[in-house]
Amino acid sequence: MLDRPLRPSPISPTVDFSAEGVQHGFLRLPYSRDDSAWGSVMIPLTVVKNGEGPTALLTGGNHGDEYEGPIALFDLARTLKAEDVTGRVIIVPAMNYPAFLAGTRTSSIDKGNMNRSFPGAPDGTVTQKIADYFQRELLPLADIVLDFHSGGRTLDFLPFCAAHILPDKAQEAKAFDLVSAFGAPWSMKMLEIDAVGMYDTAAEEMGKVFITTELGGGGTATAKSAGIAKRGVANVLKAAGILKGAVEAAATTWLDMPDGNCFSFAEDGGLLEPLFDLGEKVGTGDVLARIYPAGRTGAEPLEVKARMDGILTARHFPGLVKPGDCVGVLATVVG
Amino acid sequence: MLDRPLRPSPISPTVDFSAEGVQHGFLRLPYSRDDSAWGSVMIPLTVVKNGEGPTALLTGGNHGDEYEGPIALFDLARTLKAEDVTGRVIIVPAMNYPAFLAGTRTSSIDKGNMNRSFPGAPDGTVTQKIADYFQRELLPLADIVLDFHSGGRTLDFLPFCAAHILPDKAQEAKAFDLVSAFGAPWSMKMLEIDAVGMYDTAAEEMGKVFITTELGGGGTATAKSAGIAKRGVANVLKAAGILKGAVEAAATTWLDMPDGNCFSFAEDGGLLEPLFDLGEKVGTGDVLARIYPAGRTGAEPLEVKARMDGILTARHFPGLVKPGDCVGVLATVVG
Amino acid sequence: MLDRPLRPSPISPTVDFSAEGVQHGFLRLPYSRDDSAWGSVMIPLTVVKNGEGPTALLTGGNHGDEYEGPIALFDLARTLKAEDVTGRVIIVPAMNYPAFLAGTRTSSIDKGNMNRSFPGAPDGTVTQKIADYFQRELLPLADIVLDFHSGGRTLDFLPFCAAHILPDKAQEAKAFDLVSAFGAPWSMKMLEIDAVGMYDTAAEEMGKVFITTELGGGGTATAKSAGIAKRGVANVLKAAGILKGAVEAAATTWLDMPDGNCFSFAEDGGLLEPLFDLGEKVGTGDVLARIYPAGRTGAEPLEVKARMDGILTARHFPGLVKPGDCVGVLATVVG
Amino acid sequence: MLDRPLRPSPISPTVDFSAEGVQHGFLRLPYSRDDSAWGSVMIPLTVVKNGEGPTALLTGGNHGDEYEGPIALFDLARTLKAEDVTGRVIIVPAMNYPAFLAGTRTSSIDKGNMNRSFPGAPDGTVTQKIADYFQRELLPLADIVLDFHSGGRTLDFLPFCAAHILPDKAQEAKAFDLVSAFGAPWSMKMLEIDAVGMYDTAAEEMGKVFITTELGGGGTATAKSAGIAKRGVANVLKAAGILKGAVEAAATTWLDMPDGNCFSFAEDGGLLEPLFDLGEKVGTGDVLARIYPAGRTGAEPLEVKARMDGILTARHFPGLVKPGDCVGVLATVVG
Amino acid sequence: MLDRPLRPSPISPTVDFSAEGVQHGFLRLPYSRDDSAWGSVMIPLTVVKNGEGPTALLTGGNHGDEYEGPIALFDLARTLKAEDVTGRVIIVPAMNYPAFLAGTRTSSIDKGNMNRSFPGAPDGTVTQKIADYFQRELLPLADIVLDFHSGGRTLDFLPFCAAHILPDKAQEAKAFDLVSAFGAPWSMKMLEIDAVGMYDTAAEEMGKVFITTELGGGGTATAKSAGIAKRGVANVLKAAGILKGAVEAAATTWLDMPDGNCFSFAEDGGLLEPLFDLGEKVGTGDVLARIYPAGRTGAEPLEVKARMDGILTARHFPGLVKPGDCVGVLATVVG
Amino acid sequence: MLDRPLRPSPISPTVDFSAEGVQHGFLRLPYSRDDSAWGSVMIPLTVVKNGEGPTALLTGGNHGDEYEGPIALFDLARTLKAEDVTGRVIIVPAMNYPAFLAGTRTSSIDKGNMNRSFPGAPDGTVTQKIADYFQRELLPLADIVLDFHSGGRTLDFLPFCAAHILPDKAQEAKAFDLVSAFGAPWSMKMLEIDAVGMYDTAAEEMGKVFITTELGGGGTATAKSAGIAKRGVANVLKAAGILKGAVEAAATTWLDMPDGNCFSFAEDGGLLEPLFDLGEKVGTGDVLARIYPAGRTGAEPLEVKARMDGILTARHFPGLVKPGDCVGVLATVVG
Repeated sequence: MLDRPLRPSPISPTVDFSAEGVQHGFLRLPYSRDDSAWGSVMIPLTVVKNGEGPTALLTGGNHGDEYEGPIALFDLARTLKAEDVTGRVIIVPAMNYPAFLAGTRTSSIDKGNMNRSFPGAPDGTVTQKIADYFQRELLPLADIVLDFHSGGRTLDFLPFCAAHILPDKAQEAKAFDLVSAFGAPWSMKMLEIDAVGMYDTAAEEMGKVFITTELGGGGTATAKSAGIAKRGVANVLKAAGILKGAVEAAATTWLDMPDGNCFSFAEDGGLLEPLFDLGEKVGTGDVLARIYPAGRTGAEPLEVKARMDGILTARHFPGLVKPGDCVGVLATVVG
Repeated sequence: MLDRPLRPSPISPTVDFSAEGVQHGFLRLPYSRDDSAWGSVMIPLTVVKNGEGPTALLTGGNHGDEYEGPIALFDLARTLKAEDVTGRVIIVPAMNYPAFLAGTRTSSIDKGNMNRSFPGAPDGTVTQKIADYFQRELLPLADIVLDFHSGGRTLDFLPFCAAHILPDKAQEAKAFDLVSAFGAPWSMKMLEIDAVGMYDTAAEEMGKVFITTELGGGGTATAKSAGIAKRGVANVLKAAGILKGAVEAAATTWLDMPDGNCFSFAEDGGLLEPLFDLGEKVGTGDVLARIYPAGRTGAEPLEVKARMDGILTARHFPGLVKPGDCVGVLATVVG
Repeated sequence: MLDRPLRPSPISPTVDFSAEGVQHGFLRLPYSRDDSAWGSVMIPLTVVKNGEGPTALLTGGNHGDEYEGPIALFDLARTLKAEDVTGRVIIVPAMNYPAFLAGTRTSSIDKGNMNRSFPGAPDGTVTQKIADYFQRELLPLADIVLDFHSGGRTLDFLPFCAAHILPDKAQEAKAFDLVSAFGAPWSMKMLEIDAVGMYDTAAEEMGKVFITTELGGGGTATAKSAGIAKRGVANVLKAAGILKGAVEAAATTWLDMPDGNCFSFAEDGGLLEPLFDLGEKVGTGDVLARIYPAGRTGAEPLEVKARMDGILTARHFPGLVKPGDCVGVLATVVG
Repeated sequence: MLDRPLRPSPISPTVDFSAEGVQHGFLRLPYSRDDSAWGSVMIPLTVVKNGEGPTALLTGGNHGDEYEGPIALFDLARTLKAEDVTGRVIIVPAMNYPAFLAGTRTSSIDKGNMNRSFPGAPDGTVTQKIADYFQRELLPLADIVLDFHSGGRTLDFLPFCAAHILPDKAQEAKAFDLVSAFGAPWSMKMLEIDAVGMYDTAAEEMGKVFITTELGGGGTATAKSAGIAKRGVANVLKAAGILKGAVEAAATTWLDMPDGNCFSFAEDGGLLEPLFDLGEKVGTGDVLARIYPAGRTGAEPLEVKARMDGILTARHFPGLVKPGDCVGVLATVVG
Repeated sequence: MLDRPLRPSPISPTVDFSAEGVQHGFLRLPYSRDDSAWGSVMIPLTVVKNGEGPTALLTGGNHGDEYEGPIALFDLARTLKAEDVTGRVIIVPAMNYPAFLAGTRTSSIDKGNMNRSFPGAPDGTVTQKIADYFQRELLPLADIVLDFHSGGRTLDFLPFCAAHILPDKAQEAKAFDLVSAFGAPWSMKMLEIDAVGMYDTAAEEMGKVFITTELGGGGTATAKSAGIAKRGVANVLKAAGILKGAVEAAATTWLDMPDGNCFSFAEDGGLLEPLFDLGEKVGTGDVLARIYPAGRTGAEPLEVKARMDGILTARHFPGLVKPGDCVGVLATVVG
Repeated sequence: MLDRPLRPSPISPTVDFSAEGVQHGFLRLPYSRDDSAWGSVMIPLTVVKNGEGPTALLTGGNHGDEYEGPIALFDLARTLKAEDVTGRVIIVPAMNYPAFLAGTRTSSIDKGNMNRSFPGAPDGTVTQKIADYFQRELLPLADIVLDFHSGGRTLDFLPFCAAHILPDKAQEAKAFDLVSAFGAPWSMKMLEIDAVGMYDTAAEEMGKVFITTELGGGGTATAKSAGIAKRGVANVLKAAGILKGAVEAAATTWLDMPDGNCFSFAEDGGLLEPLFDLGEKVGTGDVLARIYPAGRTGAEPLEVKARMDGILTARHFPGLVKPGDCVGVLATVVG
């Protein structure tokens, strides 16, 4: 198996990544199916290049129901001028485009979770083909990578920018510098337990400076959260020397998720009554939420308790909860 | 047709509305279908009665994806003691129960919108049968009626309690008194343009004192919004003399929706970038939101503009918007 | 409304009901839809006529997942010879034909429950159009009517033939005579509480001699239950003087369902453990079945208890049960 | 019932039908649903008015999978100039807009067949609300009405324009004059057996001059068939004196469908082998098509035979056929 | 591939398999999806341990529509006391838990057939992850394994317990001893033609003593069949020395399925008329069942004939049959 | 992996490929699923053998919505007599039988595209199991292979027969001889860019003489296109010496698809107005079609232009077009 070279990607771009100026185009991915024998998935992208300099690869819609990234990137794509750039900016506002169009976390075509699909495969599912194209074509072009996330339809987060604890401390330091530059209200140092299949890991293993975000959730964006994203991406490009101008300073609080006790799961389903909101302090043993059985009145609700002290950093979003859902996540303030 | 009496309701309660004490039970609605030839819909309810006094009919889940009402009412149903009551409290936390179980606005069985189904029909759809039971059995038992709403999955609201401008000014005054007692951060005087089929209208036409709410939205509830609902319902019962204790005072701001210019609709679909958040002041002609075409980068977004001055009181919730969706609603501060 | 005549039925038969001999054909019901602009539902039927004599209208598949009737009637349709008949036999083995093809209780086209759709409507749903054709075209041709039922996918019954307690005692007596002739192991005298919309009622109100059956269930038939149906229909035709030959005698036990206490419903859903089988004697307060919560081990099951003494005559069939499902039906032996 | 006035239509136009010039806008139909609590259906329309003169109401997409009409009307809407018009042209290229967007005959929202939904209802389904708006608002504005049809996904037609045999012979003559002006290769004199619920009938009963077409089918359009539609609508407007210029003459052959023998239906389903193509002469008893059982090889196919002499004018389109489908329609050449 | 170690299972148990006493808990399997970004499948299990002794691993719901096993095991899980046990009992009443909740043979998540999914995969589908956990974590803990099956929704079986003919005759003898102890009315010696992917094979290849059952079917259980399962599991635990008390003796008849001639398949679909019931003797060439074409009356049914002498041991359950379905299975009485 | 032999195919034929005469039967593929635990897919086939001679393997329904092949082959299967044959003819009219029954391009069971599934797998999906059976059992029996295609529901083609440019020029010449013999109106020399997974490639790599067709499309067949297929297959068998009689001569025009410029894709979705029909000459830069935005009237349509000179050889069929769909394909006339 080591000897067999991978097939070339079936994806063809309608832009020239080495050309100067602003190009708006598509990644065209042939997709034969019942309702289009010779159809394609057309993933929009914009490339802005001006002379020599580093390349930033900016992505939103890795999960299709997270909106701060796509808003900031559709906005950037239409407003960024070549003359403001030194180097190159590659903007893919909706990486898992079928998921984005459907407004769902995973692909409407194959249910693929993009962030568990790396390194992908050129002869796999549509999601795997997109991952493979990033793995073999786009990531190698990049110096810094910013991948936007939010909580999606079923989770809500305190707005933070994040990077990973890495074995290469120089690489790690560059990433945390960009997290600071991003300037979200909260910033996170993450240690992934299981990074298999993640875009993050694919980028980091190539030595790229990789940062990511969680900027809200619930399957919506607000003027405020979209503003954080727009300011953040500009700040990152400025800090990297790609975009002209000074970083717009903003205060941030650093957080840490120490171990598995930060997660609380539901063992029963029902109607969720939250007793804490995002950003509030919670003590060990506090009741984070009650779960009322939906089948009858008068029954005692199940209590979901905190297993550590911390700040409520993420929470289950929908009004109903299912067995096994994550009800809340706590984090501790660093320093 | 005038002479033909309606069939009796097929719904049978497992509680006795005239009995003293606390009863938890069901409205059993026979529902024959492919997966249960002799099946039923079992709508949970609680009745608490203690001696003589007025009857309050409390409902949540008129739309199935609105959660502050069900949380407050499941909580009240399990904690309300007969000895704290003078009169009777009838609690139906999930009025359109099939919609509530599905987490959707309308019934999963027949797509019925409960609040457009009155007066209902005993031989109609499941939703119409429930409406008919409220129309002919439950509303006649009530003196005051509180029906909880929120924005549901697709809208988000400033939290307010509301009553209608009515021809009977005594009835209207009693309702606005209860709105004040409820104590939501915002209060609304509503003039319905088209009240056909609404539960509100059914109650008001019988001379009941009817109040309603919009307490948030997005298909979720927060600790804060659930708290408003719990305090509000207790305040209303206290103000009506049914529950012991004093109304817990809370400041409120009164709002008014003067005419159709308060609504802004989308003519195109796409990715929505909100430029104002709930509670912010908006001026006529301000761009409330941009809609980016989802099909390509670099295209100009459609701008959705405000058609009057006001406070942003409701907004489209999901990150994507479809042609014809309401993007935002403005209201003016009264007095 | 009294003056407006109903439109003629859109259904056209491919047979001549007044012709002598054996005819196999269809009731053709035009049904325009997305996958066939000028399509039709083709309901198979057979007419066998020989000289003067009474007309029997024989139907199966009133509910589409009940099989003893269709088996007996497809068999009769292919084997009945004109020379063995005096009068006329009209055989419709699958009355709600779309339901029969789908193997479901109700129509796959419109979810119509045929036995709640009478008198039907010529401009209604497909199910209502079929009901209307029986109401206005086929029932008027008939002297005796036999409509086969079984429990379908979700109920199982002791095998019985039945007729209704009627105001016209002569009509009632003729029906019970045919029940006796049918010769099922059990026979039932039924008093319908709510007969609105039933085919039974439509036939009886026209003065027809109407009998029906419940011959098993679970969405299957056995050699034994199909044999009861085949013998029963032959016996009925013989007793009516339409088919040559003597009634094949068979012992039967008469049952009665006295009041609503014969039904036991589930208030919770879960895994059903039956503690009695069909035909067994049950005493008041006996636990008919346990319902285990499906979400966790170690929890106590809900007990469903008998509310009267009797023979277990019908039971919930699927291994899982939903809130509101009928768990069991008891009947008492008569005389 | 005679006394109760209908509710006003919930549809609001974004254009002013009495204004001069070209207006592009929408009929906005409020449509509350699970995925948009305050959503709408936005039906595009164009109004072109210039001074006094007759009004033409032009519609496509009465059935959503018929394309010659929408093509001709989207083209006309963007190219028609006010100065070329005398009077008024109202263009609704996709009357059953939800069906058009889905590419299906009937509405994706409620499965409504627009051409069986008249006179509609303001509080009915979405399809009925659109029909009601045409019945009460748009048809009264019109003098001449042209409604485009084709065969849709499941039928294919010889291209013809048609009008109905009417009791009012002056009205009928005006319609046939417009059919001649349209200039399709074939023209048809139609006698509807069952005109209940049709848009045609609604227009004719108001005394409007109504013409319609069948211009191909299969769920597609060709350059040729679209060209017939574009020329036809221009010719009709010219003949009516609304559009400047002379009618572009074109030869046509007149056809007639004399009685029900022109239709041939399938009694079995399977693989369809057509033995005649559209426009070919067929003799009584000729085998129009064979139907091969799809379940096994070697079985004899069912033969579908012609029941009269004629020209094959319409045919079943999909490669598979279902029991009850119309296989072919014959017509006779007139004069 | 030999060198690459498998990833650890993503499943985490909430119980400690080495702890003494009774524990009710879950296998938590993280399952990220559109409706729960950080959701899990929660598979209930119970562990009862008391001192040293063998471990029995008891499973139901390998196929989700087979109910005798889950009933016996939910019952055992709530009633088994630690003091009655010597060794350990691990009870997983619903192995393919998503299938069990849906009441279907295969997983509602991924359509996985658990009994064709071994050895599973830690990074595969949900079904493969469960199989992997049994393969690598639970089976190694066990000495004896009892896996309950029945016919499910589409087959019905004579109730039997079974073990396989094995190359290791000592292992085989232990298994047949447990089959005898189980005490079902029938017992079967099975020789699997194609055992690839089966749980049975996975257990046997590790040297475990493995027995299984078929205890009825049709997607239901009766009091009688559930009683056989409850007595059988207790008998097996007693025979293995894990549960206190004597085996409750019961007569059994041993059966054998000699070769492929025991199966009869349908070549056409239609309405099935069974001519033999379970347990009846059938001779070579006997007509087991007739299949009536569902499309018309009067056609000859297809006859499905027995290809050997035997006892009817399994049969197609639903009233309709599809081409390729197994209609009946014959077995011969041994000795 | 090289050493592990593949499992035997699970498919068992009900015919004997080495027997003389005409046999109609099935390939039985076991397929266990929720609605049939022991079910099968039954793929019809016919084998006609007479003495020694070459074997032709004839297939239709490789894609399930292409009908000329199945019509010609169901017809041939029922009419071919052993005495007219020298050698053997194996006829599989519907290779991807689940797709054929559903009338869709890909399998209704697993969405498998048969022509991208070779060499298949005996333990894969249903589609892969069929491909494996052709790869390992049927293709090795064949000398010449004819696989019928058409455009299916979403494409329409000029009718042509085709073979590939091959490295083995003797093999290539034999194939082009058979293309000439087939006698379609058009003939094509194809150079596949990406032949991975195709049945064509599987056959050619075994050295078989392989030809294929595109004979129309749109999900239908006409009398004319079916006639081309029927004549073509007879001609091919005659040219190969398998069928008695002389090849029926027919004129053909040879075409060539030189490079990727022959394809034109849509970048936007909407209503498609074709401006050229099949067979018409197109010049570079000509507007092949317009795409009207479906959301509003008055907007400019997108123009899709030809990128080379040529004959319009294939086109998008449905009236609506999606982003990424192939709008048209051009070819050049050879010689």
